[in-house]
Amino acid sequence: MIRMILALVGAWLMVLAMGPKVVPLLRRMHFGQTIYDLGPQAHKSKQGTPLMGGLMMACALLVTTVVLHPSPFLGKWDFILALLLVSFLTMLVGFADDYIKAVKKRHEGLTPWQKIAGQILIAVVFSVYCYFHPLVGSSIDIPFVGKTWDLGVFYIPIMTLVVLFMVNSANLQDGLDGLLSTVNAVSMTGWAAIALLMMVQSIDLHLAEAVTSYASAAIFALALVGASMGFLRFNRYPAKTFMGDTGSMLIGGAVVGIAMLTRKPLYMLLLNFTLVGSSVSVIMQRAYYKLTHGKRIFKMSPIHHHFELCGYTETQIVSMYACLTAILTLVSVLSLIRY
Amino acid sequence: MIRMILALVGAWLMVLAMGPKVVPLLRRMHFGQTIYDLGPQAHKSKQGTPLMGGLMMACALLVTTVVLHPSPFLGKWDFILALLLVSFLTMLVGFADDYIKAVKKRHEGLTPWQKIAGQILIAVVFSVYCYFHPLVGSSIDIPFVGKTWDLGVFYIPIMTLVVLFMVNSANLQDGLDGLLSTVNAVSMTGWAAIALLMMVQSIDLHLAEAVTSYASAAIFALALVGASMGFLRFNRYPAKTFMGDTGSMLIGGAVVGIAMLTRKPLYMLLLNFTLVGSSVSVIMQRAYYKLTHGKRIFKMSPIHHHFELCGYTETQIVSMYACLTAILTLVSVLSLIRY
Repeated sequence: MIRMILALVGAWLMVLAMGPKVVPLLRRMHFGQTIYDLGPQAHKSKQGTPLMGGLMMACALLVTTVVLHPSPFLGKWDFILALLLVSFLTMLVGFADDYIKAVKKRHEGLTPWQKIAGQILIAVVFSVYCYFHPLVGSSIDIPFVGKTWDLGVFYIPIMTLVVLFMVNSANLQDGLDGLLSTVNAVSMTGWAAIALLMMVQSIDLHLAEAVTSYASAAIFALALVGASMGFLRFNRYPAKTFMGDTGSMLIGGAVVGIAMLTRKPLYMLLLNFTLVGSSVSVIMQRAYYKLTHGKRIFKMSPIHHHFELCGYTETQIVSMYACLTAILTLVSVLSLIRY
Repeated sequence: MIRMILALVGAWLMVLAMGPKVVPLLRRMHFGQTIYDLGPQAHKSKQGTPLMGGLMMACALLVTTVVLHPSPFLGKWDFILALLLVSFLTMLVGFADDYIKAVKKRHEGLTPWQKIAGQILIAVVFSVYCYFHPLVGSSIDIPFVGKTWDLGVFYIPIMTLVVLFMVNSANLQDGLDGLLSTVNAVSMTGWAAIALLMMVQSIDLHLAEAVTSYASAAIFALALVGASMGFLRFNRYPAKTFMGDTGSMLIGGAVVGIAMLTRKPLYMLLLNFTLVGSSVSVIMQRAYYKLTHGKRIFKMSPIHHHFELCGYTETQIVSMYACLTAILTLVSVLSLIRY
């Protein structure tokens, strides 16, 4: 437990300590956000807020998980390498995008196909890894009913799509000051609790290898909780820095990584409901727009901009999203305690 | 587990459903806040915001805990009656105060001695109850070291002071929009987790009576988490209603009640650190003022007003308090998992 506590507190303090140095540095390096022309008018004032604050989270996450890994040697089936690889590789795609946007001042960043190609590669490799992992495999847990659903070989293409969907959902949700960092701090606490529950089960079943795997997943999740809360110090309204695609894709990769390794991708519909909702609102908006040749369901998508244009302030929307996420996360975790 | 899920979600939905009816009603009944003359100037605009929104939380808490109590009959040593009595009786003192302030428009409310006398009575009775309760007694757990500290018969006077201190701390912290409701949602989740851990321990030890007691404490805590999050919908910045002394003393009573029944009053220094800090800042300020004949440590106490006068916005202070509480709560809960 001491490692988990240190991961949480260590990552939190590291980001808090880095912020006052790194944020002005990013600003001097002209890593300013070029605000999306299609966003709400009110966001014009955010022009120039330094991007890539997500690098602070990444740094804290990497250092704490590596230092605090529970076993001196990596077990053959340990989760930590897979988690770090999937989250940091998806982050790299986001980082390339941010870098082009910020330094070359081209708003578009990577072309959509460059992004997607990189993401597909990561998604396929990770899905295949999970498929063949003895603690994971092709069966996924169904919430509330206590049953599993074996996807067989379809696990690989389906999960590839799930990875793509979630990583880009995180990217879409990152549009208001403090929104994604707050929501992620809440739901990632739930993922840590799920990993802990599976660790305790493995102890009861005397599966030593599994214990280390789930413990390292919990350490990873708690480090990311700490990093998100530290980052919130600089990202809360009015934001001094944005996490950028760098940060949002790191979070997206981390969420989908831990969900798949714990065999619970379906639980993302609960713990990460608002993430999924961000994407779904964009898809609905576009589909409806095309079908009706120009009508809209929402005033603007992703749906947090709709709420903004309905008159809610950024902090009200963050509070709303955080409460909904907390309720759904608590319900999910409570439903997994078997007593 | 289903009862706990229903308590959380039920209380949340009840407050959300009540709000749109109750808030305008409170306003019509002229239950408006008379803003403290000594508060920050910026708070003058809050004049007239309806008070006693805490009644919605109380109502949701009462209904859900009574309906969802795990056993059809009250066990002899069940916690639920004690928890409901201590929180609702402390609330009554706050309610009387609010009522005089709001309806009679006397800013002072009850005289300090009337308040303290009522609180002392409740505190003594509850401390005696805990002292003689077979699951509680005079020993309290010390955080992190895994040892207990037997206070003997001093338990009663010490805990009486602790009850007084915590109830009035909650009252002092309730000075910014959404502050106490957010902080309470976070820390009360931790108290629910602690009750759940003790429930699981009791199952392992085959103590059927204790299982029901801790389960009902967890249900109570989760109902209050749900109620706080529902209330936040109307209390977040800019607040449509305040919880008033009614709500803050309900929360204070609930916190100290569950902490004492789980033998963990010392853990309030962690989970409810910001609550304790609010009181301590007031005491420090007054002592320093008297000693130095007019100098101040903080620009204003409780310390959240100091931060406000230092230029932080209300939502920034809420975010700061919530993150600190979340970290300390997670550390406490993790330290109690024995693996």
